[in-house]
Amino acid sequence: MIVAMQEGADEGLIQQVIEHLVKMGFEVHRSTGARMTVLGAVGSGIDFDIRILELLPGVQEVHRISSPYKLAGRSFRPEGTIVKLANGIDVGGNEVVVMAGPCSVETREQIFSTAEAIAKAGAKVLRGGAFKPRSSPYSFQGHGEDALKLLREAGEKFNLLVISEVMEISQIPMMLPYVDVLQVGARNMQNFNLLRELGNIRKPVLLKRGQAATIEETLLAAEYVMSGGNHEVILCERGIRTFEPSCRNTLDLSAIPVLKSLSHLPVIVDPSHATGNPDWAIVMTQAAVAAGADGIIIEVHDRPASALCDGKQAVLPENFYHLMGRLRLIAQAVDRSLGGHVGSSKFQPKAVGF
Amino acid sequence: MIVAMQEGADEGLIQQVIEHLVKMGFEVHRSTGARMTVLGAVGSGIDFDIRILELLPGVQEVHRISSPYKLAGRSFRPEGTIVKLANGIDVGGNEVVVMAGPCSVETREQIFSTAEAIAKAGAKVLRGGAFKPRSSPYSFQGHGEDALKLLREAGEKFNLLVISEVMEISQIPMMLPYVDVLQVGARNMQNFNLLRELGNIRKPVLLKRGQAATIEETLLAAEYVMSGGNHEVILCERGIRTFEPSCRNTLDLSAIPVLKSLSHLPVIVDPSHATGNPDWAIVMTQAAVAAGADGIIIEVHDRPASALCDGKQAVLPENFYHLMGRLRLIAQAVDRSLGGHVGSSKFQPKAVGF
Amino acid sequence: MIVAMQEGADEGLIQQVIEHLVKMGFEVHRSTGARMTVLGAVGSGIDFDIRILELLPGVQEVHRISSPYKLAGRSFRPEGTIVKLANGIDVGGNEVVVMAGPCSVETREQIFSTAEAIAKAGAKVLRGGAFKPRSSPYSFQGHGEDALKLLREAGEKFNLLVISEVMEISQIPMMLPYVDVLQVGARNMQNFNLLRELGNIRKPVLLKRGQAATIEETLLAAEYVMSGGNHEVILCERGIRTFEPSCRNTLDLSAIPVLKSLSHLPVIVDPSHATGNPDWAIVMTQAAVAAGADGIIIEVHDRPASALCDGKQAVLPENFYHLMGRLRLIAQAVDRSLGGHVGSSKFQPKAVGF
Amino acid sequence: MIVAMQEGADEGLIQQVIEHLVKMGFEVHRSTGARMTVLGAVGSGIDFDIRILELLPGVQEVHRISSPYKLAGRSFRPEGTIVKLANGIDVGGNEVVVMAGPCSVETREQIFSTAEAIAKAGAKVLRGGAFKPRSSPYSFQGHGEDALKLLREAGEKFNLLVISEVMEISQIPMMLPYVDVLQVGARNMQNFNLLRELGNIRKPVLLKRGQAATIEETLLAAEYVMSGGNHEVILCERGIRTFEPSCRNTLDLSAIPVLKSLSHLPVIVDPSHATGNPDWAIVMTQAAVAAGADGIIIEVHDRPASALCDGKQAVLPENFYHLMGRLRLIAQAVDRSLGGHVGSSKFQPKAVGF
Repeated sequence: MIVAMQEGADEGLIQQVIEHLVKMGFEVHRSTGARMTVLGAVGSGIDFDIRILELLPGVQEVHRISSPYKLAGRSFRPEGTIVKLANGIDVGGNEVVVMAGPCSVETREQIFSTAEAIAKAGAKVLRGGAFKPRSSPYSFQGHGEDALKLLREAGEKFNLLVISEVMEISQIPMMLPYVDVLQVGARNMQNFNLLRELGNIRKPVLLKRGQAATIEETLLAAEYVMSGGNHEVILCERGIRTFEPSCRNTLDLSAIPVLKSLSHLPVIVDPSHATGNPDWAIVMTQAAVAAGADGIIIEVHDRPASALCDGKQAVLPENFYHLMGRLRLIAQAVDRSLGGHVGSSKFQPKAVGF
Repeated sequence: MIVAMQEGADEGLIQQVIEHLVKMGFEVHRSTGARMTVLGAVGSGIDFDIRILELLPGVQEVHRISSPYKLAGRSFRPEGTIVKLANGIDVGGNEVVVMAGPCSVETREQIFSTAEAIAKAGAKVLRGGAFKPRSSPYSFQGHGEDALKLLREAGEKFNLLVISEVMEISQIPMMLPYVDVLQVGARNMQNFNLLRELGNIRKPVLLKRGQAATIEETLLAAEYVMSGGNHEVILCERGIRTFEPSCRNTLDLSAIPVLKSLSHLPVIVDPSHATGNPDWAIVMTQAAVAAGADGIIIEVHDRPASALCDGKQAVLPENFYHLMGRLRLIAQAVDRSLGGHVGSSKFQPKAVGF
Repeated sequence: MIVAMQEGADEGLIQQVIEHLVKMGFEVHRSTGARMTVLGAVGSGIDFDIRILELLPGVQEVHRISSPYKLAGRSFRPEGTIVKLANGIDVGGNEVVVMAGPCSVETREQIFSTAEAIAKAGAKVLRGGAFKPRSSPYSFQGHGEDALKLLREAGEKFNLLVISEVMEISQIPMMLPYVDVLQVGARNMQNFNLLRELGNIRKPVLLKRGQAATIEETLLAAEYVMSGGNHEVILCERGIRTFEPSCRNTLDLSAIPVLKSLSHLPVIVDPSHATGNPDWAIVMTQAAVAAGADGIIIEVHDRPASALCDGKQAVLPENFYHLMGRLRLIAQAVDRSLGGHVGSSKFQPKAVGF
Repeated sequence: MIVAMQEGADEGLIQQVIEHLVKMGFEVHRSTGARMTVLGAVGSGIDFDIRILELLPGVQEVHRISSPYKLAGRSFRPEGTIVKLANGIDVGGNEVVVMAGPCSVETREQIFSTAEAIAKAGAKVLRGGAFKPRSSPYSFQGHGEDALKLLREAGEKFNLLVISEVMEISQIPMMLPYVDVLQVGARNMQNFNLLRELGNIRKPVLLKRGQAATIEETLLAAEYVMSGGNHEVILCERGIRTFEPSCRNTLDLSAIPVLKSLSHLPVIVDPSHATGNPDWAIVMTQAAVAAGADGIIIEVHDRPASALCDGKQAVLPENFYHLMGRLRLIAQAVDRSLGGHVGSSKFQPKAVGF
């Protein structure tokens, strides 16, 4: 930690700050220049709010040098983490893992038909919501445990793993038998009680970045889960809130290289919620793989127009199939692979111009 | 609802959209112009995602005319809502209600000394955190029920009501005997399960705007609580996330007139978290009252430098006392009043220039 | 400047960085801790991009301690700057200076009638656009020099100073005879060539913060003008771009105390463009004065509905008159004054609830 | 245009609004529902601020249906625009065009060595700044016309076109002989006088999106240039300002498909300024091509550490060469091509993990 004293700070003030730091357990190194004095404070395991120091008389600025997260930081595991899912699928290894499915589980027919389609296209994980966090209390709220049963059944039939969102601590024990990965939604990224509970289970957790969360806060949220002992965390970029209204959120693909440089955890991308448009979601999926994403979680629905939730943004199965063909080539271009399927190269997106 | 057809949309497409709307239960009015056709769809109690309609061939844009919230909307109670607290204090009436206290309850001495000071200055409600939502899992997390007991005791001794933050559904029953108002923090503003539970109790709820929440989303969150039957909701502006780094968040005081025009619910302001600085919090409190806030919730701490949480931003009791004097005059200037105390007019803020 | 070395950086890397700093002209102080080494580099008049240093092998972070602006910084003139306008009006002194008038000068009748009304209410400066920066090339673009003549004439008749926006270097010489203050609009805040030219004149400049400009960038823009020798700069907060759509921009009133603590320059507020609504502009004007603004620049129009530009947000003369009465009381509450007029206290805004 | 009346609006108010619209030249279609009345107003060539209508008594909301830009809109040229540069290079066709070079032209040696390297790698256009818009008045401001001469000379020697930024109307005639494309920087995107002048020349203009500009505003800026008769406009996404501090700006790649759907103009991406980091710029370049960009403009510098401006973010020539190999494969994956060079597939970025 660096404490820069104000230009006019006299010796008495400097000594006071040094004593304060020593009392807190720091080793202090002083650097006295022509115009100002800087104190370097070194100590391990001392956790506090650095702004407290800025209150001390004579202090101009305080900078934390070491990052506030430890277990989630790149230096904790420089070689990178591979989250091992059931069936031998690795997230964070060479293969780009594709998760797909509807926003919410609606009917047996819907989920089986979609599961079959995405499995054929090469996806490895089936997504589908059982509990839906909706902004309006009057909107469809999900089918709960029945939805999870359908997901599991469809997953087993088509050899897909299953991921679904947990919204409440009380849902965790009920969900565990049905899902392979528990997803934490963007709105719950800083629901610290929920994160702490997820630290006590032994299943992978997919943690979505909050729409107003900085990358540092996202890593601190991962730290909450990891500090409980569950190190199987997958980070997910899904769009941040900005002034631009044309998309629901602005997908921040630069978060991929930034997270990769700061953390060892795998990073995947959800292109559907941010764009809110299937054609744009397809294009941004291509971009995400080119930017080094370890995986994708995308909405696919066999009949988007009649979906009970967020139908507009779901990709049609046939377009998803063609997308997978493109992703295979893009993955190869960046020295990665895409398991399973050899997609067609005939894909022609319908929208004009891209 | 307004459905604007694309310029070139032919009669067949227009008829399809009209049939779709009729099937959904709408009464449809058609307006055919030289260049485009517009459909007005009128119907009550039909709740769905308008984006579904944008998927229909030939549709250019869909606009919802009525707001997505009902109970929280101004038209539900045009005269405005007064939330009646115990002891006859009204939030939303002529009086500007001041809530003050430390970020978190630390010791009996701290809470009693602060309570005495704020009561003398004219505050009506004592605030203090028992559970702290902290970004880092390694930071102080609050003293729980013991903190609530201290708050209640101090409140009773100095004739103050008590407000504290609830973070989890499971905490509600335990908290009810201790607090007069349950506060929902910014990070939980879209924790819909928690909101729904708060709809079932019969105590006022103070709902803080999320740091990335639009005003519409804030009113939808209030709607969750109200749709459960609890109409005693107080809204609280506490800063939104923007690109400007000099304050922790940007306090959006224009949210006061906007919320007042859209909703009948009382609006108060928390100047402490956004500014993160006691001098700036004082100035912004003055501004909030001048902008028509129905109340203020501000951090006051008798010894900020030794606070376990967010000490830096807490106002000293003596400065709070002087601030109350200024607020009294400002309240009068905008035809409001400030109960209790006649503050001194001698207040000279210490920072240079304001 | 502080250079923090990476944890594993060896002695060779540290020596390289020290040599680099010495070659740049810095005096270097080294602080070696158990885990990391920190270098303090002190030197005056050395201007460069600190990111260059972050490129050096072994460097983790570089922090600039002194601010990048000098003339605009509070320490350059700790007592604060008073910009002296003609007629003995001070901006930055005890009096809160009110500037008012239409968005753009349209007709002789409009400008004379508005000027008379604002003068009676106690405003000291007449505003009005001659050149309008419009987002659309098809919108009204202003009446140019004719507009300036009208402004000057109306100002002289009603004893008001005149302020108008300059958009282009080539307009400066033409404008100088007509205006008392040259205004730089938000879109031109980083038009550095224009700023540099304004540094060469000897008339006060009102510099509006860009809608995406940080406070630091705003002060750097002021520095451009001041470094040319023109120290008569008035800063103006007018709203920043955020995700919230209910107002055109989010008025950042906390910029007032922040600018006051970082700079000695006077700070005024434009509530009209950000809110885009006359009732909200009135409320935010009250808040701005309560927050310590040195002045206000607000749109007043005698017939807003027929305005050629931004009519919607202009305040009616009668409401402006009542507002001035409130501002007088609020100014007194914060130990300031409002020259001229004793407004009525009977003002009742028309919107419900505030 | 759609005018929705308030729920309680009586017949008199409705008639007033209808008359107002008719007087403005609109044909009005009325739709009367159970709860509200909606007016559809159709008319061509009527340009005004729709907010004026919201001022009329009884009006709830007004929506413009047709977009405010005409020449820049997709419907003006549905097949898409190809901007033809000298030497037969098309921007907006099948080939992805790569522009590269240093942030600013510093020395003959630097510009020739960089030009040679990028030409070998397959770039078609040499970029380099002659006038630098710097936030601080004390930073390096560019070498002016001398820089342009060097650029032209280097371009001719290595068969590269030349692009450079124009900052001021007065620079246009001087620059025209030297450059093939005139670049408008993000800070000047709403410098409407400059845009208007560029409408009068007959050279392609590369228009960078402002860092706080919406996509609609970007297209309106293009409209300014096009309305003067110069239709050769290339749009450029270069990052927008958000709350996330880890990159200088957040590169909004979803702007590519959004711009493609709204406009016929070619879209290229500048990954350097937003990321401020060469490794991240490389990754985001890959993503941009995968997202359908028509070109790239990227900073390449032979000795980044000694650059006078923004050196940190420049890519080394050897890394650029390898990047071009990857881009070729990604372009093919999305049915595009990259002219010239067959890059190596051996590229291993140095940063860990991507």
